[in-house]
Amino acid sequence: MADVVVVGTGLIGTSCALALRASGFTGRIAGIGRSRANLDAARARGAIDRGYAFEERWASELVGARTVLVAVPIAQNRSVFAALAPALDAASVIIDAGSTKQEVIAAARATLGAHLARFVPSHPVAGSERSGAEAANAGLYVGRQVIVTPLPETDPEALRAAGEFWTACGARIASLDAARHDRIFAAVSHLPHLLAFLLVDEIASRADSAEYLANAGGGFRDFTRIAASSPEMWRDIALANRDALQSEIAVFRQALDALALSISHGDGTAIEALLERAAKVRRTWGESGVGATEGVPAI
Amino acid sequence: MADVVVVGTGLIGTSCALALRASGFTGRIAGIGRSRANLDAARARGAIDRGYAFEERWASELVGARTVLVAVPIAQNRSVFAALAPALDAASVIIDAGSTKQEVIAAARATLGAHLARFVPSHPVAGSERSGAEAANAGLYVGRQVIVTPLPETDPEALRAAGEFWTACGARIASLDAARHDRIFAAVSHLPHLLAFLLVDEIASRADSAEYLANAGGGFRDFTRIAASSPEMWRDIALANRDALQSEIAVFRQALDALALSISHGDGTAIEALLERAAKVRRTWGESGVGATEGVPAI
Repeated sequence: MADVVVVGTGLIGTSCALALRASGFTGRIAGIGRSRANLDAARARGAIDRGYAFEERWASELVGARTVLVAVPIAQNRSVFAALAPALDAASVIIDAGSTKQEVIAAARATLGAHLARFVPSHPVAGSERSGAEAANAGLYVGRQVIVTPLPETDPEALRAAGEFWTACGARIASLDAARHDRIFAAVSHLPHLLAFLLVDEIASRADSAEYLANAGGGFRDFTRIAASSPEMWRDIALANRDALQSEIAVFRQALDALALSISHGDGTAIEALLERAAKVRRTWGESGVGATEGVPAI
Repeated sequence: MADVVVVGTGLIGTSCALALRASGFTGRIAGIGRSRANLDAARARGAIDRGYAFEERWASELVGARTVLVAVPIAQNRSVFAALAPALDAASVIIDAGSTKQEVIAAARATLGAHLARFVPSHPVAGSERSGAEAANAGLYVGRQVIVTPLPETDPEALRAAGEFWTACGARIASLDAARHDRIFAAVSHLPHLLAFLLVDEIASRADSAEYLANAGGGFRDFTRIAASSPEMWRDIALANRDALQSEIAVFRQALDALALSISHGDGTAIEALLERAAKVRRTWGESGVGATEGVPAI
């Protein structure tokens, strides 16, 4: 008989619960998860009132729940939805928090049955390179964007309720088509994450990596911050969004090849033109919107 | 008759002058540069006592100077050294501040004549994506590393004096072979800078780039911070260090191809293994040394 059920009490789910608490929400919040450590940490921090492992008897908590937030690595959505479905209350709004949307929608279509109209696919564009309930914080979503990608079937009332949920967490709401979302985030988020992981791994794999890492400075630090992110979460994203990601990798590799050619030709004019274009865009971006909130960790 | 002459009063040179002032240095500091705006800004900020454009008569300022700091984009070192050489005082220590070392050493060998033994090649591993005297700050070098790459000919007394100069600016000194330096920085600094510039340019070149950039979050922000850096400076670095950079690009492209293959095969095990290795290294690096100074801008 919880008001809110958070499935997955890692960084994202626990931060939502803490944000709700901070907004003055006094209802009951139950947590369900696979990690006893995260459940205990979420409870110790006051984010949830009670925590259940998946194998425990949590079904009664779903009775009358206003919101069920599913915040698990993407590959787990299908089995989590399937486990929840029989116990879901017809009045509950189901919200996910994944960084790719088409695969979670397919999982929902395959498992949620009549509850599909109450499911609102959501991507909070916020996070951290840290993971787990211990890393959660009530301010994670403040001023950040949450992108919803509603289905044709989505109940407008459920969409409105999901918007209110995220707004209570401090976020702004935007709406996108799911396929468009996945293409955009392949370029602006998934590819840079993989490039950062790749650079660190490639340097770390050298016999003399210690000397390289000892000399790395602030550019390396910021460029690779996201390479400390959850490997499981990013493995799932890479696979869930593989088509869009593969075209982004192909386009990026072409650009890298062209730059390598300019360098080998000593073509300073071409190199400077590229750097000028990028610097102009990045400086402008940095002065407005998301870029202006320098220092706030977010994925 | 200045005590210190700063040639190039941009971010790096002006920050050195401000750092010296902050350390209690009360001697005369003269500035020489191509940008009247930077010279005026450096003077207005109290970094230099007098500023000269290159075409002005600055030679007398070099008489008796303890230190001549040359902090210009790398491609300009040769002509700057050649212009300075006839007026250099035999007792002056000449220091550069470039991010690649072999090319500046070649420029010094070609131009400095008898002053070569008083030249100490230096790379302050500090900077910012911002440029110019207005962006300079007295704390830029505090706790950062300056790498010196002395020549066989380098006068030990000049090396010691250069170390004192950088220490007065707040930095720590390390020493490396110049070729080794250039290889290491190609991997940990020059390549990530170019990757960041490339990602921004590649996204910005799309007809619908505005929608991509509007959805970019904190991962993109940190990954691309260095893409706002000076295009001229980074063009020069790419060309000056082109051999090392080209092998780094080749190695990185191979790693990217391997990852693309794992993604197309849906090989989650291989992907997760790579991400795990990288995350482990990045987390450890972040807890020690340079990585621990999160939030301090540095190149």
